[in-house]
Amino acid sequence: MQKIIEFILELDKLKAVTRKVRPLGLERYENSAEHSWQIAMFASALLPYAEGQVDINRVISMLLVHDIGEIDTGDTMVFVEFGWEERKAAEQAAVRRIFGLLSDGRGEAFLDLWRGVEGGFTADSRFAHAVDRAMPVLLNLSNNGQSWRENGISYDRVVRRIAPEINAGCPALWEYIEARLQKARSEGWFGASGP
Amino acid sequence: MQKIIEFILELDKLKAVTRKVRPLGLERYENSAEHSWQIAMFASALLPYAEGQVDINRVISMLLVHDIGEIDTGDTMVFVEFGWEERKAAEQAAVRRIFGLLSDGRGEAFLDLWRGVEGGFTADSRFAHAVDRAMPVLLNLSNNGQSWRENGISYDRVVRRIAPEINAGCPALWEYIEARLQKARSEGWFGASGP
Repeated sequence: MQKIIEFILELDKLKAVTRKVRPLGLERYENSAEHSWQIAMFASALLPYAEGQVDINRVISMLLVHDIGEIDTGDTMVFVEFGWEERKAAEQAAVRRIFGLLSDGRGEAFLDLWRGVEGGFTADSRFAHAVDRAMPVLLNLSNNGQSWRENGISYDRVVRRIAPEINAGCPALWEYIEARLQKARSEGWFGASGP
Repeated sequence: MQKIIEFILELDKLKAVTRKVRPLGLERYENSAEHSWQIAMFASALLPYAEGQVDINRVISMLLVHDIGEIDTGDTMVFVEFGWEERKAAEQAAVRRIFGLLSDGRGEAFLDLWRGVEGGFTADSRFAHAVDRAMPVLLNLSNNGQSWRENGISYDRVVRRIAPEINAGCPALWEYIEARLQKARSEGWFGASGP
């Protein structure tokens, strides 16, 4: 029991990992714990539009664990295009440390879920990735492009980083988002084209 | 698709609902979205100690939806002992409104999960309640009794409000917490006895 308590208090630190987008109507930045809750709910609501046969319970659990490595590494904006592999290796070391706090096979079960997201080769993992990629975009689209503006992110970079993954896991969602992004571009919400 | 997007952006408001406990090491108060994530993870980690046969996937989904009504009502500290029924009626109206944004049967599925938590008569719901009640107590126990001190909550009130529910859903967790609470009392972390 003591180990489980240490584990859940260790997870408390994810509430302090801030992302680049702000919750709607709030001044502060979103943190990775509340983001994880929101994408689990989003996957559940979006289930009728998932591509392929997905196990929604597994997808939900994948999404709940997938950012836990950020407790050691911090969040990296998905539009950062360099150092991605080093970053993933550091996250893997982090989840091994954190899930290693648990016995009773629960730690292994969490690690298996985490690897399942990172693998990316199943319908579950594709759907999980689509939902995760889409959520900050939807917030930005309701926030006048807040994090794109603040970070000078170009339209091309957004599309390059999210289109393949959203389209693979949830084509109807990509169709919806693509139309919204084009409108946002015409309204000047993006940075200049660039690397 | 438009309705699902409206739904998930409506859920964003749960990030603005603040609770009475502070995340460890942070000055701000916890919000109900990150709390929902943490208790879903806690239930999953604690599964080997659940009382009775629980469907952990259902418990996780219950915990993810159970605070959504607070978008309209705000959080009420569990140690507030009056107005509980009116409060639950208001939360029910709120979740009907919010889940009513969805079609495809997803709204009904969420409402069924929400009712499942509130019902309280199954092993799933008892375990969900135990986890939900225990989490802020564990944070307080690691925070020098922060929200008990700030709100003048007595030891007796804490025990009265949480012991039956934690013990019913996860007796080993209650045994652990009870010993910690007695130690905390001896250290003077609680308010004076009273209503």
